[in-house]
Amino acid sequence: MTLILKSYIEDRWFTPVDNLADIPSAIDGHVVARASTSGIDFAAALRHAREVGGPALRAMTFHDRANLLKAIALYLNERKEELYELSFDTGATRRDNWIDIDGGIGTLFAYASRGKKELPSERFVIDGETEGLSKHGTFVGRHILTPLTGVAVHINAFNFACWGMLEKLAPSILAGVPVITKPATATSYVAEACVRMIVESGVLPKGALQFLAGSTGDLLDHLTGQDVVSFTGSADTSEKLRNHPVISRNAVRFIAERDSLNAAVLGPDAVPGTPEFELFIKEVAREMTVKAGQKCTAIRRVFVPRVQEAAVSDALKAALSKVTPGDPRVDETRMGALASRSQRASVVEAIEELRAEAHIAFGHVDIPEGEGAYFAPVLLRCDKPLEAAKVHSVEAFGPVATLMPYDSLDEAVVLVRKGEGSLVASVFTYDADVADHLIFGLAPYHGRLLVIDRDCAKESTGHGSPLPGLVHGGPGRAGGGEELGGLRGVFHYMQRTALQGSPERIATITRRWTKGAAAPVTPEHPFRRNFEALKVGETVETASRAISLEDIEHFAHFTGDEFYAHMDEEAAAANPFFPGRVAHGYLILSFAAGLFVDPAPGPLLANYGLDNLRFLKPVSPGDTIRVRLTVKDKKAARSPEYGEVRWDVEVFNQGDETVARYDLLTMSARRPG
Amino acid sequence: MTLILKSYIEDRWFTPVDNLADIPSAIDGHVVARASTSGIDFAAALRHAREVGGPALRAMTFHDRANLLKAIALYLNERKEELYELSFDTGATRRDNWIDIDGGIGTLFAYASRGKKELPSERFVIDGETEGLSKHGTFVGRHILTPLTGVAVHINAFNFACWGMLEKLAPSILAGVPVITKPATATSYVAEACVRMIVESGVLPKGALQFLAGSTGDLLDHLTGQDVVSFTGSADTSEKLRNHPVISRNAVRFIAERDSLNAAVLGPDAVPGTPEFELFIKEVAREMTVKAGQKCTAIRRVFVPRVQEAAVSDALKAALSKVTPGDPRVDETRMGALASRSQRASVVEAIEELRAEAHIAFGHVDIPEGEGAYFAPVLLRCDKPLEAAKVHSVEAFGPVATLMPYDSLDEAVVLVRKGEGSLVASVFTYDADVADHLIFGLAPYHGRLLVIDRDCAKESTGHGSPLPGLVHGGPGRAGGGEELGGLRGVFHYMQRTALQGSPERIATITRRWTKGAAAPVTPEHPFRRNFEALKVGETVETASRAISLEDIEHFAHFTGDEFYAHMDEEAAAANPFFPGRVAHGYLILSFAAGLFVDPAPGPLLANYGLDNLRFLKPVSPGDTIRVRLTVKDKKAARSPEYGEVRWDVEVFNQGDETVARYDLLTMSARRPG
Repeated sequence: MTLILKSYIEDRWFTPVDNLADIPSAIDGHVVARASTSGIDFAAALRHAREVGGPALRAMTFHDRANLLKAIALYLNERKEELYELSFDTGATRRDNWIDIDGGIGTLFAYASRGKKELPSERFVIDGETEGLSKHGTFVGRHILTPLTGVAVHINAFNFACWGMLEKLAPSILAGVPVITKPATATSYVAEACVRMIVESGVLPKGALQFLAGSTGDLLDHLTGQDVVSFTGSADTSEKLRNHPVISRNAVRFIAERDSLNAAVLGPDAVPGTPEFELFIKEVAREMTVKAGQKCTAIRRVFVPRVQEAAVSDALKAALSKVTPGDPRVDETRMGALASRSQRASVVEAIEELRAEAHIAFGHVDIPEGEGAYFAPVLLRCDKPLEAAKVHSVEAFGPVATLMPYDSLDEAVVLVRKGEGSLVASVFTYDADVADHLIFGLAPYHGRLLVIDRDCAKESTGHGSPLPGLVHGGPGRAGGGEELGGLRGVFHYMQRTALQGSPERIATITRRWTKGAAAPVTPEHPFRRNFEALKVGETVETASRAISLEDIEHFAHFTGDEFYAHMDEEAAAANPFFPGRVAHGYLILSFAAGLFVDPAPGPLLANYGLDNLRFLKPVSPGDTIRVRLTVKDKKAARSPEYGEVRWDVEVFNQGDETVARYDLLTMSARRPG
Repeated sequence: MTLILKSYIEDRWFTPVDNLADIPSAIDGHVVARASTSGIDFAAALRHAREVGGPALRAMTFHDRANLLKAIALYLNERKEELYELSFDTGATRRDNWIDIDGGIGTLFAYASRGKKELPSERFVIDGETEGLSKHGTFVGRHILTPLTGVAVHINAFNFACWGMLEKLAPSILAGVPVITKPATATSYVAEACVRMIVESGVLPKGALQFLAGSTGDLLDHLTGQDVVSFTGSADTSEKLRNHPVISRNAVRFIAERDSLNAAVLGPDAVPGTPEFELFIKEVAREMTVKAGQKCTAIRRVFVPRVQEAAVSDALKAALSKVTPGDPRVDETRMGALASRSQRASVVEAIEELRAEAHIAFGHVDIPEGEGAYFAPVLLRCDKPLEAAKVHSVEAFGPVATLMPYDSLDEAVVLVRKGEGSLVASVFTYDADVADHLIFGLAPYHGRLLVIDRDCAKESTGHGSPLPGLVHGGPGRAGGGEELGGLRGVFHYMQRTALQGSPERIATITRRWTKGAAAPVTPEHPFRRNFEALKVGETVETASRAISLEDIEHFAHFTGDEFYAHMDEEAAAANPFFPGRVAHGYLILSFAAGLFVDPAPGPLLANYGLDNLRFLKPVSPGDTIRVRLTVKDKKAARSPEYGEVRWDVEVFNQGDETVARYDLLTMSARRPG
């Protein structure tokens, strides 16, 4: 009996009974599974996410949620062979699966790690510094980001059933927003298996994840301005979604990643025989054939100096002739099948369209016999790309690319830009000027750009790989969306809000001290208080200490820092910044530490760093300094034994002028057990 | 003869001859001006911006463009009386004009200043740190932002003819994107005068600014993915624009700021007699009547504890009864006219709609006699706001607000959220817990939130004032857009691109050294080279120096920093971070300076600060340190005499392990004359 895919709705598996669609295998056409969402109450699913999943996720801190992601990643990692097995029927080879399945799990790990390292153990994020809004400092502003209270609706493409789902899931969950995910039906059996594992793991709270195997029904009709739709797929579908009356009326956030005619450009310096020429041929052939070219980031347009056109064409043909599509289950197979025969029909149709402006230089559009959706690579050549339109706009979503000549770097820029916005382009050159010219010419039209040369090739992750730390998306034809990019991808699921009020109120709300907020001097030295006992705002005011000319000279001789500003009155006075001889900045820092350090063992374990130090006023011999230290914020470190404390330090002179200001970073012991 | 408004297209003034629309005065109904864009070639206007204005702006640095903004601001500031005069016919009082005209000029000044202070003297911005993408560090990533190559199309509302135009213009020009601006026709004579001054000033390059007095014709049909539409106005128009097939198909960036039912919430602690109660009454009355309530940020919904409802109602009535609409040209007038009689008719219609759920507690909807669009304040009361819909969704764009009771803080949050996303809300409380509860409850639904209390009231800029440094916009009903917010508002006109390549290539492209890039040691000490001569990447490697136990003890006694980790072997060894007694971090810094400082006068003028210092490994007595200094980047300071140089400093021990790392900031002299 054929597998009937279930949806996971309101924390229960839903088995459809009607309107079932057959999902054929890409390899042999047998029906792998059947799917339908007929009968699902989509409004109830959204309500469940909003009323159960959202509150549960938002009750956690970023660190808690990062832990969820890591736990899911570990669970999936143990079970990925099962996903590999299923995925062969999508036409994907083992190497393709590595990108999809291991790549997806890797993205979970990456966001888990960033969440722990780059986000606080809090439920909101501070964005930027305090903005002074008034003359006397009693009214200030500061931005925070908080999770949206709605639902992240993820609509994915057929090509990466796991990665596509997980790279959207990770940032949403880390942000604190529950997910309803809908894979493309064609490969939804792989996504279903992956979701089944996540559900089995029991890691996520109730309502945090729901899954639709099949269409979205009337789901979009129930969206609000607190929801986010993130879509990967065709421009047509994207346009339909973006114009959905509810999405438009309620200003639902809409992130789209769609058609993209990504380019690779061979630099004029990269002549045959150079490492860059070899790298170019290898990368183009690889991008055309990995995942049978069904990648939104694949190279579709290949631009080369006119004089190199023949050489490139020959080399590419040689490389492509080694790639024969075959059964993806066989280890030696370098290219599997397209996702379906209907997908193959679209590719053939697109090639026919491209032939109006280009001719086939390698390969053919003849369909091989048999039930599998196999299709061999096709390289097109277009001789007049400046006058062409289709080669820059028609995406043949398979192992297909078009080779085109350019006559100057400026022309190369014009040609690449004719793609009207792409996800990625790569430039192959070892010449800094060529790289500069192309990169700045192409940047406004791209979400990602690579310069591949002999220095980075060995470790390069390649043209086609989006990475968790870099943005993925592109302007114009590519949809105008942005995903990943480290925390940038998380913040798409959060609302930025400007807060205004007194420094004290802004400090208490943001849990971070800001100048002007209360700074109570505690009787006990705060260095003697452990991490938990320390309160944001607690302050110590030190005694003062004079700095003599002897101190300065002594310090100069001791450290070897005999800079004239400290040693030569006349020369110092001629410097635009100094009134005459002044104390070393490092002497001020050192004396400041001498004033505030509490020598005996205690909860303060170490001063591990310093941020934003500015020397604001010179200290002359005879001046006196004193220090004010205030707990600025506290950050639970990854160790249970200590936490990180950031202190606002201000050093004053005898006239109460600030001579230096910095953040002091310490590790403070936590209360034992 | 009635003034015929001109458009400014392709650097020429265009005088329309047909389809002229009359623009009546808000005060007496006389026709102030007539406007039409009939006959304008909109496609040519876009082309002119793209081919002339864009390239001219992008050839400049951010600092150059900041200078343009400042020059325009100064020019307008000298001539603002003329704008005041014209603006009276829009119904605006002198105080209203201050917000519109001085507020607009102030925004130009603010962006000029931020451009100089917060952006580099470059044509692109580095966004974030280097991302390591490989094990051995030969492949890295970094994000940059570059100006879009298209056009910023600004479509403004009638209420702030100057501010609305200038607050959109400033970030666009600073980003390097030319502008086509279109005011609401009703008050376009004020905008036209302002644009005329800007054109007269001769400050902007050709093609950088075009102006439409009248409709946008077929302008939108010609937009691409490199263009940005920023719209302020009604939800209906916004929806129409957002769904424009070209905007959708080409993923044109679309920023909307539209209807918003902003709330003010009185905290339970703010009982009559407290300063916060007084402040609340004053602010609500002010927000209802400033600009005759025609502000997208005005308070429309007034939430108070049920027990205070009567007291608030009485106090508001008393405050509002003092505000009689009158001739805005008269200095004593506290509230002028609505923008037009048709605008007044919409307000009356909205009030009638609201009366289905609320009753009029103060004022009336009777239209006064005469030709002016005068309308007195109306306070509505709704007793069952939890069950109501219209009071949370119908915006009466005039001096109108609805008073509503709440029974608990949670209920207050639910009620405010029923606005489905607003630009701003304000909370009046002196209780930290109340503030915390409301702010975190409301944040996801708002672009801006104020906590107003006795500590900040005197300097507060108020509920209704967007500020250049804080984001302006809101989710959901408010349009989902974001403007201003300092550089955030600039970056909406730029494309973020992830760059990947070798550290050397990324360093040359971004003009910032990154670890792994070439670091050539120069024969001459780089401290002896002036700002211009210094090259990013230039490096000095110092001799090494041993640190003895005597050094540590000497430093401790000299500075007074006798922390046990430096002084007591046993106690130090018990600390989780130290192997035994270690050198002071400040001793390492000081000795490092002693190693790299070049004592004689030269181009290096001062070390003014230090960033991102981390002590990475303890230094024990007997260890030896040496230092590597590399020019990380250079920043032309505001002075012509010197520039800021950022050095990457790494301190190594005898085993070549990094013991400390930081950015050293210096001022270096520029080449004389």
